[in-house]
Amino acid sequence: MTHTDFESIIERIHSIMHQQVMPLEPLLLQQQWSRLFNAMNQIRTHVKAQGLWGPNLPADVGGMSLSIKQLGLISEVTGQSPLGHYCFGCQAPDAGNAELLHMYANDFIKQAFLLPLASGEIRSCFAMTEPHTAGSNPTLLDSTAELIDDHWVINGRKWFTTAADGAAFTIVMAVTDPQAPKHQRASMIIVPLDNPGYQNLRNIPVMGHAGSGYYSHSEVEFTNCRVPASHLIGQRGAGFKMAQQRLGPGRIQHCMRWIGIANRCFELMCKHINSRQITPTSTLADQPLMQAKVAESYAALNASRALVLETADIIDSAGFEAAKHHISMIKFECAGMLQLVVDNALQSMGALGMTDDSIVAFFYREERAARIYDGPDEVHKLSLAKSLLKKHQ
Amino acid sequence: MTHTDFESIIERIHSIMHQQVMPLEPLLLQQQWSRLFNAMNQIRTHVKAQGLWGPNLPADVGGMSLSIKQLGLISEVTGQSPLGHYCFGCQAPDAGNAELLHMYANDFIKQAFLLPLASGEIRSCFAMTEPHTAGSNPTLLDSTAELIDDHWVINGRKWFTTAADGAAFTIVMAVTDPQAPKHQRASMIIVPLDNPGYQNLRNIPVMGHAGSGYYSHSEVEFTNCRVPASHLIGQRGAGFKMAQQRLGPGRIQHCMRWIGIANRCFELMCKHINSRQITPTSTLADQPLMQAKVAESYAALNASRALVLETADIIDSAGFEAAKHHISMIKFECAGMLQLVVDNALQSMGALGMTDDSIVAFFYREERAARIYDGPDEVHKLSLAKSLLKKHQ
Amino acid sequence: MTHTDFESIIERIHSIMHQQVMPLEPLLLQQQWSRLFNAMNQIRTHVKAQGLWGPNLPADVGGMSLSIKQLGLISEVTGQSPLGHYCFGCQAPDAGNAELLHMYANDFIKQAFLLPLASGEIRSCFAMTEPHTAGSNPTLLDSTAELIDDHWVINGRKWFTTAADGAAFTIVMAVTDPQAPKHQRASMIIVPLDNPGYQNLRNIPVMGHAGSGYYSHSEVEFTNCRVPASHLIGQRGAGFKMAQQRLGPGRIQHCMRWIGIANRCFELMCKHINSRQITPTSTLADQPLMQAKVAESYAALNASRALVLETADIIDSAGFEAAKHHISMIKFECAGMLQLVVDNALQSMGALGMTDDSIVAFFYREERAARIYDGPDEVHKLSLAKSLLKKHQ
Amino acid sequence: MTHTDFESIIERIHSIMHQQVMPLEPLLLQQQWSRLFNAMNQIRTHVKAQGLWGPNLPADVGGMSLSIKQLGLISEVTGQSPLGHYCFGCQAPDAGNAELLHMYANDFIKQAFLLPLASGEIRSCFAMTEPHTAGSNPTLLDSTAELIDDHWVINGRKWFTTAADGAAFTIVMAVTDPQAPKHQRASMIIVPLDNPGYQNLRNIPVMGHAGSGYYSHSEVEFTNCRVPASHLIGQRGAGFKMAQQRLGPGRIQHCMRWIGIANRCFELMCKHINSRQITPTSTLADQPLMQAKVAESYAALNASRALVLETADIIDSAGFEAAKHHISMIKFECAGMLQLVVDNALQSMGALGMTDDSIVAFFYREERAARIYDGPDEVHKLSLAKSLLKKHQ
Repeated sequence: MTHTDFESIIERIHSIMHQQVMPLEPLLLQQQWSRLFNAMNQIRTHVKAQGLWGPNLPADVGGMSLSIKQLGLISEVTGQSPLGHYCFGCQAPDAGNAELLHMYANDFIKQAFLLPLASGEIRSCFAMTEPHTAGSNPTLLDSTAELIDDHWVINGRKWFTTAADGAAFTIVMAVTDPQAPKHQRASMIIVPLDNPGYQNLRNIPVMGHAGSGYYSHSEVEFTNCRVPASHLIGQRGAGFKMAQQRLGPGRIQHCMRWIGIANRCFELMCKHINSRQITPTSTLADQPLMQAKVAESYAALNASRALVLETADIIDSAGFEAAKHHISMIKFECAGMLQLVVDNALQSMGALGMTDDSIVAFFYREERAARIYDGPDEVHKLSLAKSLLKKHQ
Repeated sequence: MTHTDFESIIERIHSIMHQQVMPLEPLLLQQQWSRLFNAMNQIRTHVKAQGLWGPNLPADVGGMSLSIKQLGLISEVTGQSPLGHYCFGCQAPDAGNAELLHMYANDFIKQAFLLPLASGEIRSCFAMTEPHTAGSNPTLLDSTAELIDDHWVINGRKWFTTAADGAAFTIVMAVTDPQAPKHQRASMIIVPLDNPGYQNLRNIPVMGHAGSGYYSHSEVEFTNCRVPASHLIGQRGAGFKMAQQRLGPGRIQHCMRWIGIANRCFELMCKHINSRQITPTSTLADQPLMQAKVAESYAALNASRALVLETADIIDSAGFEAAKHHISMIKFECAGMLQLVVDNALQSMGALGMTDDSIVAFFYREERAARIYDGPDEVHKLSLAKSLLKKHQ
Repeated sequence: MTHTDFESIIERIHSIMHQQVMPLEPLLLQQQWSRLFNAMNQIRTHVKAQGLWGPNLPADVGGMSLSIKQLGLISEVTGQSPLGHYCFGCQAPDAGNAELLHMYANDFIKQAFLLPLASGEIRSCFAMTEPHTAGSNPTLLDSTAELIDDHWVINGRKWFTTAADGAAFTIVMAVTDPQAPKHQRASMIIVPLDNPGYQNLRNIPVMGHAGSGYYSHSEVEFTNCRVPASHLIGQRGAGFKMAQQRLGPGRIQHCMRWIGIANRCFELMCKHINSRQITPTSTLADQPLMQAKVAESYAALNASRALVLETADIIDSAGFEAAKHHISMIKFECAGMLQLVVDNALQSMGALGMTDDSIVAFFYREERAARIYDGPDEVHKLSLAKSLLKKHQ
Repeated sequence: MTHTDFESIIERIHSIMHQQVMPLEPLLLQQQWSRLFNAMNQIRTHVKAQGLWGPNLPADVGGMSLSIKQLGLISEVTGQSPLGHYCFGCQAPDAGNAELLHMYANDFIKQAFLLPLASGEIRSCFAMTEPHTAGSNPTLLDSTAELIDDHWVINGRKWFTTAADGAAFTIVMAVTDPQAPKHQRASMIIVPLDNPGYQNLRNIPVMGHAGSGYYSHSEVEFTNCRVPASHLIGQRGAGFKMAQQRLGPGRIQHCMRWIGIANRCFELMCKHINSRQITPTSTLADQPLMQAKVAESYAALNASRALVLETADIIDSAGFEAAKHHISMIKFECAGMLQLVVDNALQSMGALGMTDDSIVAFFYREERAARIYDGPDEVHKLSLAKSLLKKHQ
């Protein structure tokens, strides 16, 4: 793909985002779920017709086969709205699941689950985090899967299973080999959610609402849940390794999505203070304390962005291992930047910033999770430092 | 009141807070408004029977006639729950309104409005902030009140009129003397809310929900709204001056309420990390990065608390004017501390901190307003600095 | 002493500081040591004549027998200049040494060392920190003292022995009981510095200069250094416990000295920006970004100050143990505040702030140590948190 | 130049820095000026012989004719030591002066001043900042130059004239056209420093010492100082415009030099904590609070670095105007990062960090100026924000 071709893709996505996607945000904020999903599904049809579907997917399952950097640049644009990734078919957790199945699953699974997932016919979820074990330490899982009569029998409770409500299947992480070395105990198994051994206990209320459908996080339970042995993904005991790899490429997309959010908030802040009269002859934009917030937000945003793009360049040219330290640091660097910029935007908008008349308050509360999921900041800092300190011995 | 008597009051309030008030919080988080208000009204009856009603009120309207510092110490205890102030009859905006009416209103208003307000029979609201003028500059009001035929005819739109939904009356701030010097243009007028010229346009959705009843913030409109001339509070043109004085004593209560919230979050953080297993032999509490958050939160909290109590001492011994700089700085100092402590607590609780299984997420989103209302941090900083710089010339 | 008497003491000290002490600061900055010490010794004579000598000392050795809080309030005033504590006879490490000897030393030591120290005839130092063991862990000392023929034979190297250059004696911390439980291994021994087994290796260059006399930090060595058994201070093996107690009361003085420095820098900042023209009609003081620095500095300073005074009140009324958490947190809270205020002052003074035409640059570089000595911030935070977390189990 | 050729240049410079330059630093810290300059001049000879002289200069005056990005990457390596730029002939202010003369000066000046400057035979300085006018506003100059009898007669006082001590000439900025529009009043004039109308009043003591020779900042005075009219650089009245352009390209070099310093401090921190035993079985590097400092420093450093390199790419491919916002933000972003990393390094080294046994304390005190010179952070933030806000209207 030429540079010009790619630029044109970005522009077309940008235009769909502004003309079709963002105008639906009030439906999200008012929790009008069915109207919202109907409208988004229409956009999906349009996106497919335009050849813009599945930027994260390989061409053989209907995607765009882009480089990591190109995918990141698209994620920046679609990330500007909480509705963007869904409309373009690259929403978490489906995106990561599809990448995982594409890389590791057997033909049966690819046929039965990957193809309809990639095309957007069905949705999926990823059941890893457990309420009573530390999410930051995936080697401490309570959930188990025993191989009995050529079936996996799964037991355990998971929570923060994003988008479980309405999903067709989940990938579940469970201990299959409790006696193995600790990073080789768990496996990934695919479970259709009409299985009688599976139950969605509740959509967890997060930051004030329980969500619905794709926009939900569920607490789910597996009770003697049986699936055929063929539902194992990849090697037995390779669950932890695959979970790591599932996060790697997604990191760029995640960070660029956050940068998209930060950009959106930055623009809303600039527009608001430019228009907000505070004396008969001046606006908020004339206030140096507001100007400082603008400058500091812009610099933080662009420094994080340059670092993520540098990371993508390293991955594309030298591979994930070479980018290991970069992948680790962009997680907490970007999450911290995001919180700063969203907070600055909210503050500069005053009382309006607290309301759902603007999308900023939504980002403020929902994206607080950025410093927690995929490993809290603290865990990434410690593991990065240990690796760096080894180099300097 | 002896020191021991006061200590015993604090303990009794503390016990009601923990045994009766906090257990109702799930009703708030689940927005079960009628069950919530029924239960709280029972607590109110109990509180009155115990002689603990109205800590902010003078004895002659059924209150406790406390010093500013004592009132602050009570506010710290009742502030631990978003339900506390309501249960003890000292909730904003009623508390400030009652103090204002007690100080400035004529006998008719006191009889008709103050007494039932002070006893908790009715609720009130305070309509000052406007959607299209800067809240930080109360001299720029659009709303007007004209004296015609011995009646005030009020026109204008207000928003963030806290607790308007279900209130019996509002105090409205409107320009009565547009030609006067700019700080003498506005007056305060009392308006019963069954007046046909008044309309509650909507409960504004704030941080994800529109609230209800006492827990709401409304956008309201006055259209040729007529009330008798006797509904003027205090002097014509004294609205701005009274608004300032209304905030002064309330500042200590506000700040101590925030300190109560910070204390609550601090305790929840400590309990959570003490109990959260992260390896077979250790908990989150053994992690130095968590310990640092504990120590930094505790120090910030106690420094702010010492400053607020010092402020209260100055007010009680030397009056508000002597405490002017202190009153200004505790606003932004405490709001900043609150945000830090709540953020630390949320982060240390991980995914759980994002959910409504804990009260921390509620404080995270709702109390973000602390840096905005009653004048944003930025405004307080500039005005404090200007006053300090004059002293050093 | 009545409140009024104490107020008058504060005023007299304040006046000596401004009229006599601060004018000598250029001699310090130009490192004109002999002229500096001559001039300061004259001030000392005046201070003694005024009855203002030794605010930290008990009356029976010529001091003022003040409460901890009063002593703190004096330290705030004398702390405004790096020359202040010396001029009033309450300079570290002599102040702490005198308190220690007063509490623990035998009569011989009191007669021979404490009396001339308290009167300012001689100076002393305190040799604890070692170059090759972690200062933050005083149980890991390399230095030893063996009791041979009724003499202590001391071997070891120490550094950051403040004011060793020109001191008459040192108190040295050395391991006397290597087999004892780890907090009972070390003892404190007094060593006259004309002992042939003692050598001052160098005055360590700190932040650009090696200092001289009282204003020095030395690296010193003890080589088979013999002193009579009677030179032991307090109990054998009680060194660690006494070191802790030596720091306790001094903490208030230290923190109030920092607050004095912060106050000085705050005033210099205000005066500078008030007078610094930046356009024909305005000064730096008209710049909101400068005003924000003023307000934030003032609030941080006063919050720390209120916390230290609260700590002093707790100590005076309930003892050190009751104030344990407070004593721990004021260390890092005040050190952080100090760095913020000094940095703000320096920045607001621009290029001038970098020069020795002002005292701010001196404080910037010398007081960076505040976050390190007497236990780095990190150590205090962890130990405070562990203690707090135990309470919340 | 191929990528490989350039890589080899970087490696050779790196090796000279570590083997020859850094070992001289103790001479700087001990202020042994003549031994220092002798040793550095020998390195200069070696550098020239190796073809590594003048990376910032065009080939026609003996330089390397590099791109802005390449020059930045070299500056990162030479910046690791305060002695580096001098040894490679690219030290401020000579580098900027040479670039200026190359672009604007007449042939006479080029011959008489530029050539010996570029070859390192002589040094120069740049007299712009004045003690009594705001450095952040170069349109407010007091210094004047009048054209009388075909000579400029210059009067005025300047300070922070870096490296004036021992320089052969200065470029002085003075008002030649007081009635012109305010950005066209000043001109740049070259003045040989043996002129009797010029006087170096003093080397200003900065952060504890007055420096000497190249390492000095002087206060200088021009009293009826006469130079021929031909000493004007560029157009009359173009002084302000040329001053802006002089800073532009230098910004990348400055920022990359800071990144070099940050890298140096980062490595010293890692090495120190790796080697510092704190218990019999662990080092400081095992402490999570230290690890957090390592990770946060590394992330801040690399985010700033990615941003500066992105800026250099924009300049090289699209010119300075296209990079305007980037050039503005890297100034304060990098200065802030530098202060953070240096502070973290110093803190992690404990008492050692305060001493001149390590270079960290030198960077701590000297590089504090980074947030002040070339326009304080505050000025850059405001001007960046104003420009950004215009775009979002």
